Amino acid sequence: MTTKYKNVYIKSTGVVVGPYENKGPLSKLFDKHYDDMYFGEKTLEQAETKIMSDSIEVALNKGNLKTNNIDLFIAGDLQNQITSSTYAASKLNIPFLGIYTACATNTEGLGIGATYIESKICKNVIVSVSSHNMVSERQFRNPTEYGAPKPGTATFTATGGATCILTNKKSKVRIESATIGIPVDYEQTDPMDMGSVMAPAAASTINRHLKDMGRTALDYDLILTGDLGTFGKEILKDFMKTEYGIELKNYNDCGVMLYDLKNQKDVQAGGSGPVCSALVIYSDIIKKLENKELKRVLYVATGALFSPTTVFQKSNIISIANAISLESVE
Amino acid sequence: MTTKYKNVYIKSTGVVVGPYENKGPLSKLFDKHYDDMYFGEKTLEQAETKIMSDSIEVALNKGNLKTNNIDLFIAGDLQNQITSSTYAASKLNIPFLGIYTACATNTEGLGIGATYIESKICKNVIVSVSSHNMVSERQFRNPTEYGAPKPGTATFTATGGATCILTNKKSKVRIESATIGIPVDYEQTDPMDMGSVMAPAAASTINRHLKDMGRTALDYDLILTGDLGTFGKEILKDFMKTEYGIELKNYNDCGVMLYDLKNQKDVQAGGSGPVCSALVIYSDIIKKLENKELKRVLYVATGALFSPTTVFQKSNIISIANAISLESVE
Repeated sequence: MTTKYKNVYIKSTGVVVGPYENKGPLSKLFDKHYDDMYFGEKTLEQAETKIMSDSIEVALNKGNLKTNNIDLFIAGDLQNQITSSTYAASKLNIPFLGIYTACATNTEGLGIGATYIESKICKNVIVSVSSHNMVSERQFRNPTEYGAPKPGTATFTATGGATCILTNKKSKVRIESATIGIPVDYEQTDPMDMGSVMAPAAASTINRHLKDMGRTALDYDLILTGDLGTFGKEILKDFMKTEYGIELKNYNDCGVMLYDLKNQKDVQAGGSGPVCSALVIYSDIIKKLENKELKRVLYVATGALFSPTTVFQKSNIISIANAISLESVE
Repeated sequence: MTTKYKNVYIKSTGVVVGPYENKGPLSKLFDKHYDDMYFGEKTLEQAETKIMSDSIEVALNKGNLKTNNIDLFIAGDLQNQITSSTYAASKLNIPFLGIYTACATNTEGLGIGATYIESKICKNVIVSVSSHNMVSERQFRNPTEYGAPKPGTATFTATGGATCILTNKKSKVRIESATIGIPVDYEQTDPMDMGSVMAPAAASTINRHLKDMGRTALDYDLILTGDLGTFGKEILKDFMKTEYGIELKNYNDCGVMLYDLKNQKDVQAGGSGPVCSALVIYSDIIKKLENKELKRVLYVATGALFSPTTVFQKSNIISIANAISLESVE
């Protein structure tokens, strides 16, 4: 199912990052950054709420909007019971939809938000995501063996908050269409190799999107996956070719773009987390769409659907990818 | 924000319950039940997926539909990273939106689903929720002191799977409108007293709904909250009167209705969990709407937004309530 939208525009975005993201190649394009991991809060979890709230404030200011101009707040994050989002929501006084598809959450939110705008139910919708490296490490990987190295296929949860304000009023960039993902199960079980887990989901969604829209991959100036990382990126290219006969040329991965992989060794195969792709899209990509350097971009956020409990129980890791087509407006 | 819908109908529902729910006063109205808590699965978590999948199968059969007739699957549950829903989704081959607002999840899903139907993006949408008493106990309340009694204000997570299939084709019951909740924070911190936490959210949403629709509480044959329990129910009535000057007369609470509170002492103040209100609505209430015993019902599911981590950190528990107005069709 791919939905075409006629009247959904991006009013403004806000991206706020942690210290490590600010050392990456996109640092000059972020709206705000912090030099520590607590951002003045008492706990890491509260820090994640803070950075999501910050990104909302930035987006509202850039869009010259106040919270009472906003009809709906859609948000999700990786924390158990998405508490980063719910605490951010508790400060806004706006109707709230909580969502979760792991690192594919941002494109899920953009898809739902676009539907509420297109159907004229809403005029302005805020869509936010966050993740925090230390919150994720503690929640998903604790207890870890002291000093145990991670394999090179592991990814690094990005720290940041990212917000997009969708509107029915014409702007420089619009949401042209959305393809909601179908979960896939390739019987993979290794949470330290998310690229392999998520590549088939990305392939499935890209293939469905192109079919539904009657297009080829070359109809996009750029196809960007969420956070497959260096290994997952190559797997996706192979998989698209062998499974669907599609060659991905104008293609990159946000997890690979967010960090300087040569010098920022900690990130291993690249960045991940719901905010990872949003940080890249709302900084580098949105600017290139605004100035027409890029005309049409397919943004395919990918998510691995599991919990520590399901990993301990040796259940397969399910994956999903939701795609949003972004266009510069004439 | 209250959205009015013109063309959103309930095609069919499916409710499958655990042994304890089947001893309650509604037992004859459920579609299927299990006599143990594993339902033939290896783990309790897999059992929860199973009971959600069962409810989908029942609803599809009752609606004479197959999965390839369905455009979208919307689901949520209480498990970390909503894995009950994601595993159920992985078996369906349908685009999937994962959602979370705790025990208010079902009405969030109905609201989003109604929007996708009304906007003509979808013809048939499945909305599912589940909860499992033992999964919740382990996840939210472990470790508990051995033999420690719970206070009388505590509620009991219901075990079950519940599914509603929304359609654009006329049926006996329709979704007339939806009011998405605004999260509220009354600085409460006791997870053993959810009724007190959630009553103000229910009050806020009912008040907004009535205002937006230009109605009084008496314009509904019945107003039903999700799972406030015996104490929360009384708090809501008081709160509505003192805060908004609204008297709730035709009012009840699903958490109170699901069990036989006199004889099923374990449930303390009543049932809870995302499935609790859905089990009552899709059994007792839907039948009364179908046969016009009830003409208009306001279904207000309430959710407490927190995690064990935020409770340990002594953060306030945020609450939300999403309301759906159901009408029998002439």
